[in-house]
Amino acid sequence: MTRTDSMPAVLERARDLVGPSLRRAIERLSPELRPLATYHLGWSDADGRPCGGDGGKGVRPALSVLSAEAVGAAPVFGVPGGVAIELVHNFSLIHDDVIDEDAERRHRPTIWSLFGIGRAVIAGDALVALAQQVLLDPGVLALGEARLADPPTAVAAARSIADATAAMIAGQALDMAFEAVPVVDVEGCLAMEAGKTGALLSCAASIGALLAGAPFGAIEALSSFGMELGLAFQAVDDVLGIWGDPASTGKPAFSDLHQHKKTLPIAAALAGGGPRAEELAALVATPELSSAEVARAAELVEACGGREVAESEARRRLGAALGALERAELRPGPCEELCEVAAFVVERQH
Amino acid sequence: MTRTDSMPAVLERARDLVGPSLRRAIERLSPELRPLATYHLGWSDADGRPCGGDGGKGVRPALSVLSAEAVGAAPVFGVPGGVAIELVHNFSLIHDDVIDEDAERRHRPTIWSLFGIGRAVIAGDALVALAQQVLLDPGVLALGEARLADPPTAVAAARSIADATAAMIAGQALDMAFEAVPVVDVEGCLAMEAGKTGALLSCAASIGALLAGAPFGAIEALSSFGMELGLAFQAVDDVLGIWGDPASTGKPAFSDLHQHKKTLPIAAALAGGGPRAEELAALVATPELSSAEVARAAELVEACGGREVAESEARRRLGAALGALERAELRPGPCEELCEVAAFVVERQH
Repeated sequence: MTRTDSMPAVLERARDLVGPSLRRAIERLSPELRPLATYHLGWSDADGRPCGGDGGKGVRPALSVLSAEAVGAAPVFGVPGGVAIELVHNFSLIHDDVIDEDAERRHRPTIWSLFGIGRAVIAGDALVALAQQVLLDPGVLALGEARLADPPTAVAAARSIADATAAMIAGQALDMAFEAVPVVDVEGCLAMEAGKTGALLSCAASIGALLAGAPFGAIEALSSFGMELGLAFQAVDDVLGIWGDPASTGKPAFSDLHQHKKTLPIAAALAGGGPRAEELAALVATPELSSAEVARAAELVEACGGREVAESEARRRLGAALGALERAELRPGPCEELCEVAAFVVERQH
Repeated sequence: MTRTDSMPAVLERARDLVGPSLRRAIERLSPELRPLATYHLGWSDADGRPCGGDGGKGVRPALSVLSAEAVGAAPVFGVPGGVAIELVHNFSLIHDDVIDEDAERRHRPTIWSLFGIGRAVIAGDALVALAQQVLLDPGVLALGEARLADPPTAVAAARSIADATAAMIAGQALDMAFEAVPVVDVEGCLAMEAGKTGALLSCAASIGALLAGAPFGAIEALSSFGMELGLAFQAVDDVLGIWGDPASTGKPAFSDLHQHKKTLPIAAALAGGGPRAEELAALVATPELSSAEVARAAELVEACGGREVAESEARRRLGAALGALERAELRPGPCEELCEVAAFVVERQH
């Protein structure tokens, strides 16, 4: 992505810090798996030639580094967690693209559409196994003696990632189940999003502190910050999934409506009742929608207040995230940067 | 599968011991994921109704339990490892069926062919994440205070599984790459099989000892036993993949030749050279083979000595596995049972 003036400086700083370790971890993959991973990450093209991409905004590594700094630890304490979470995040993107049959991501063909479903499945599998190795085997990142977590801390960190991964997978399975039912209530929708998006951001925002041996209260506050931020992130994503500009998002217009996703704006619009909600329900239940029908469905979601619900949910969750940071004694500088990242996530257009 | 007289008693004993914990772990899956897992394991039918299946022979849990007993520990030390490895093994089966487009396993439709590719992908993902939780979070199995691994042991066990999982995935990726090339040498083929099959059996055969805090020498001997057994297992699998009786294996006749797998008998047959090897090479390079061509290819593999190479490799690796057990001081009773399991694996017909 292009750097904009609104992008917090910490994203670049965290990328410089975490990036080399992420590359070192990817180097451990076998020659059959590595090109798939580097293609997905935007580091190489379809023929394996290096190219200048950097794969995503790097919000998760930034949170991981800041969570170490927020408890007064050196930023390097956030590196193993940042690498592991970035690997789990990319595992989920690769498999989600297979599941959703999305042919493009970040304006490039997805792994499955270029190399086949089998290779996308195995590439995702490789990243999730590597994520655990990063936390359990200090030899993978070779950050030096000083950065070896003691065994109880390594267990806690690996468990935090395993739990977040399991919650994310359960959220994705719920999202898939929602596609097949006519109506989903707002509560169910938020539970799905807490798993699908909140769990990993919650882990990202606390694992640096955890690896630095911070007290429970600080880890809990940072973890809550991440969960609330995840729900804000997802509410924004849901708005972009319907009304996002295809030129920015890289997805087709009204993408989520085409795919029969039951995201927050849709669930909220259907919950309101009345003739417009009924018209929307009928469209949502139609297996294949024409472009005109999808545009009409988007209009109805907005008219039924679904867009406003999601936008206010994003603001409310952002507020709750910032509030969580006040529940523990954290360093003011890193805290300010956490707030900048949070604001960036909620204001983004893609 | 039907119990035969040749089946070692330890398989049933290990199933009784590990089974309840495996069920408890599966219970943790969300309502969307659980029915997929229980269907795959043979515990429920396509509509979620319980049925009497027990999912496979249970070789891995038996090895895990025996590896604890072999170092003089109570069999329960082998339970968390046995559960975790059974989960990883089933994750790999579910994803391999997607990758290989196999529509049947154990005489039942595979998950992807019944519920779709997306659900097979997410079900596999859920099992691999759960495997790590089993080792890192004592609450999952709730085996009681006495069975909590201390943190250094938990790290070693979780790392052992993560490393074995990563090696297995790399082996599978290599297997996929082999399908696209005309010839594979025997050495490359064995390296692929060491990853694809050996790594997880090596982990299974040593993790009980590892969790029981056994000395390095014992863990190493058991780990070698498992690796050699894995290579023997795979050599037998390769023979069954061509000449296995479809009624027993649940796979079509000459299955591996249809799928352009480059297994040991095929690699060995091609390596010999001569006119028959050339005829075989031409057939192997043909994209779609008729039934007559596949039968001819199988005949040529046998005529070129490929079957004999695989069968003698299985015997040789079985011998090496038994030899590895003599390198450490292990309890004679459990050792004898390890040998029984090894013999069973090599003599099996499916």
